Amino acid sequence: MISVEEARARIIGALAATPAETVPLPAAWGRVLARPVLARLTQPPADVSAMDGYAVRAEDAAAGTWLAVIGAAPAGHPFAGQIGPGQAVRIFTGGVVPPGADAILLQEDAKAEGARVLVQETVRPNRWIRRRGLDFAEGEEVLSTGRRLTARDIGLAAAGNAPWLAVHRAPRIGILATGDEIALPGDPIPAGGIVSSNAHALAALIRAGGGDPLVLPIVPDDSQAIAEAARAARACDLLVTTGGASVGDHDLVQSALGPQGFSLDFWKIAMRPGKPLIWGQLGPTPVLGLPGNPVSALVCSVLFLIPALDRLSGLPGNPPRTIHALAGADLPENDRRFDHLRARLEPGPEGMPIAVPFPVQDSSMMKTLARAEALILRAPGAPALATGAPVEVIPLGDLGF
Amino acid sequence: MISVEEARARIIGALAATPAETVPLPAAWGRVLARPVLARLTQPPADVSAMDGYAVRAEDAAAGTWLAVIGAAPAGHPFAGQIGPGQAVRIFTGGVVPPGADAILLQEDAKAEGARVLVQETVRPNRWIRRRGLDFAEGEEVLSTGRRLTARDIGLAAAGNAPWLAVHRAPRIGILATGDEIALPGDPIPAGGIVSSNAHALAALIRAGGGDPLVLPIVPDDSQAIAEAARAARACDLLVTTGGASVGDHDLVQSALGPQGFSLDFWKIAMRPGKPLIWGQLGPTPVLGLPGNPVSALVCSVLFLIPALDRLSGLPGNPPRTIHALAGADLPENDRRFDHLRARLEPGPEGMPIAVPFPVQDSSMMKTLARAEALILRAPGAPALATGAPVEVIPLGDLGF
Repeated sequence: MISVEEARARIIGALAATPAETVPLPAAWGRVLARPVLARLTQPPADVSAMDGYAVRAEDAAAGTWLAVIGAAPAGHPFAGQIGPGQAVRIFTGGVVPPGADAILLQEDAKAEGARVLVQETVRPNRWIRRRGLDFAEGEEVLSTGRRLTARDIGLAAAGNAPWLAVHRAPRIGILATGDEIALPGDPIPAGGIVSSNAHALAALIRAGGGDPLVLPIVPDDSQAIAEAARAARACDLLVTTGGASVGDHDLVQSALGPQGFSLDFWKIAMRPGKPLIWGQLGPTPVLGLPGNPVSALVCSVLFLIPALDRLSGLPGNPPRTIHALAGADLPENDRRFDHLRARLEPGPEGMPIAVPFPVQDSSMMKTLARAEALILRAPGAPALATGAPVEVIPLGDLGF
Repeated sequence: MISVEEARARIIGALAATPAETVPLPAAWGRVLARPVLARLTQPPADVSAMDGYAVRAEDAAAGTWLAVIGAAPAGHPFAGQIGPGQAVRIFTGGVVPPGADAILLQEDAKAEGARVLVQETVRPNRWIRRRGLDFAEGEEVLSTGRRLTARDIGLAAAGNAPWLAVHRAPRIGILATGDEIALPGDPIPAGGIVSSNAHALAALIRAGGGDPLVLPIVPDDSQAIAEAARAARACDLLVTTGGASVGDHDLVQSALGPQGFSLDFWKIAMRPGKPLIWGQLGPTPVLGLPGNPVSALVCSVLFLIPALDRLSGLPGNPPRTIHALAGADLPENDRRFDHLRARLEPGPEGMPIAVPFPVQDSSMMKTLARAEALILRAPGAPALATGAPVEVIPLGDLGF
């Protein structure tokens, strides 16, 4: 058995970012930049007004002075002339400050009357002018390689005049559920069988993480069928299997994939839930074999699949984010397996959440997992803790999970 | 001018959830349930083994006893017979416990030899059996109306045998950017003009929030063009405009929409950035008029558009989540407008983040906004604060924003 940390390091170490593709700007949200975005223009492109009002020469614009309004400069319509002594130009937010002007008289500090305007508040030089290049300059790198693009980044790339972006291809993840006992929802259920929940939960998780899930038909516990399905996954960046990873006679994934050229890296992790987890390589395709228990499969996904997906997407593949919380119940001493207790989060003192573990932690209970808001982390050999002691938890809400 | 809270309450109060539609299970991720999901089966459907091993009668299974192995019960293949005295059945995780057995002898506590097995550790009754219905019972409501479905929920619905779910339709949000000065990325830019960044940033934000953005062609500052585009948006659940909301002569959205039957609710909010914000109704379609400044538009989106989108999606439309942080700089006394300072988050003492405001908060600066990790909230009239004082912030990372 290897540790959770070592397992993650070996998984991440075996993966590389997908190659780049060019996508139109709106399709780039959530993708990871493969090439930096350089601004193709200077923003603002000229000195512009930050407010509605009048472009003036500050030296002329003392309170009580009348100025002649010689034109207007709305945004997008620069005033063609120049401002001389005693003159002003009506201007609007984003309008180009005409040559000669060095300040803006605010609309609320002015009184317009025909072709002239009364200064009611003395204007300070440079006031309410946004200087050329305040936001960014042409050629400046506004977004860097390796960044997962937010809605704001899309806005920034647009402002920099980039209609196309080079991003890493969304990783295609094949999902192969195995087992004689499982059926798709709505399909006939064999005697003693259950409905497959892993494949579609994993597909949703992969979609939430920016991947492209490919759900393969369920295969029975039969080497030939498993091998067939694995071949269908050759075009994937990663093949995820569920079921068949434990030590039972009917755990065929390992033996079925062997003749296909599968090379195993490791298959046991000192953790709970989810000890049996296969990691290896099938020809060019890395294979992550998740346990069949839905809860184990999803907890292992948080710990290993999401970082793997991040890595394939062009990110470093960091462990899931943890936050501080207080134990909402007494916790027993832990054995040598890293434990992940499903818990609710309740508001605690000074904004510190209280993580209350569910009393039954059986790894078959989907309902408990769906209600859980966090996983309480219990390292191997962690000492017993009393209620209220500090613990580290993985919040599940921010994983789209 | 009305307060941020009142503005949000009036916006949310005017909106209702979209009607329901039926979608296949995999399409339901991120959508809000319009009808509850009732389990169509009991899970597990029978008493099943939690481990690989042997189904036994605990009274027979004292350490040192040999039992006759009379068959096997892998998952999906229940053993047809009954276990009698001195007998055992090979069983695997998820396999149905045969009649007569009342406990599982773990594989690691057993030694198999031909058709018999040696008990090496005395078995306790009921051990390692998952009882019928441990997870949920047929007819039980496993997912409730109004819940935004996570990946785990998709798994739970699948386990409950639901191939189709009734969810609220993804709200269609029309986006109308106005202004003579703006051009799409890659298109020719008029003299003194800028590239439109709002429309595509908003589209990404709406997509991140589960909506269906409809980006309308940019319209110039001309009443006729604006009215035309507004008509194109009649099929939308919400029309969002950007630009044209302030008091300038060139702010035409209000006047252009008037003849189309636009009724204004309010248009000024005591906040910064983003004071001018139109809220009203154009025939059946609610209209949210965002400021033209990209930073103002996006901050207003966090405060008003995301809650509005949530409400349309079937959620309550709560304000954005806030967290506690420590001020990373001295903050001056605030005036009567609710201020939202763009800030970076740095790790602070005991997991409490430090929110460091950017020194220049100009509302035209997209680069600063893209780099920001939080908005520091400064209520109207908030007193000056020294570095290290507690503040409330809206974290931007978890908004897909």
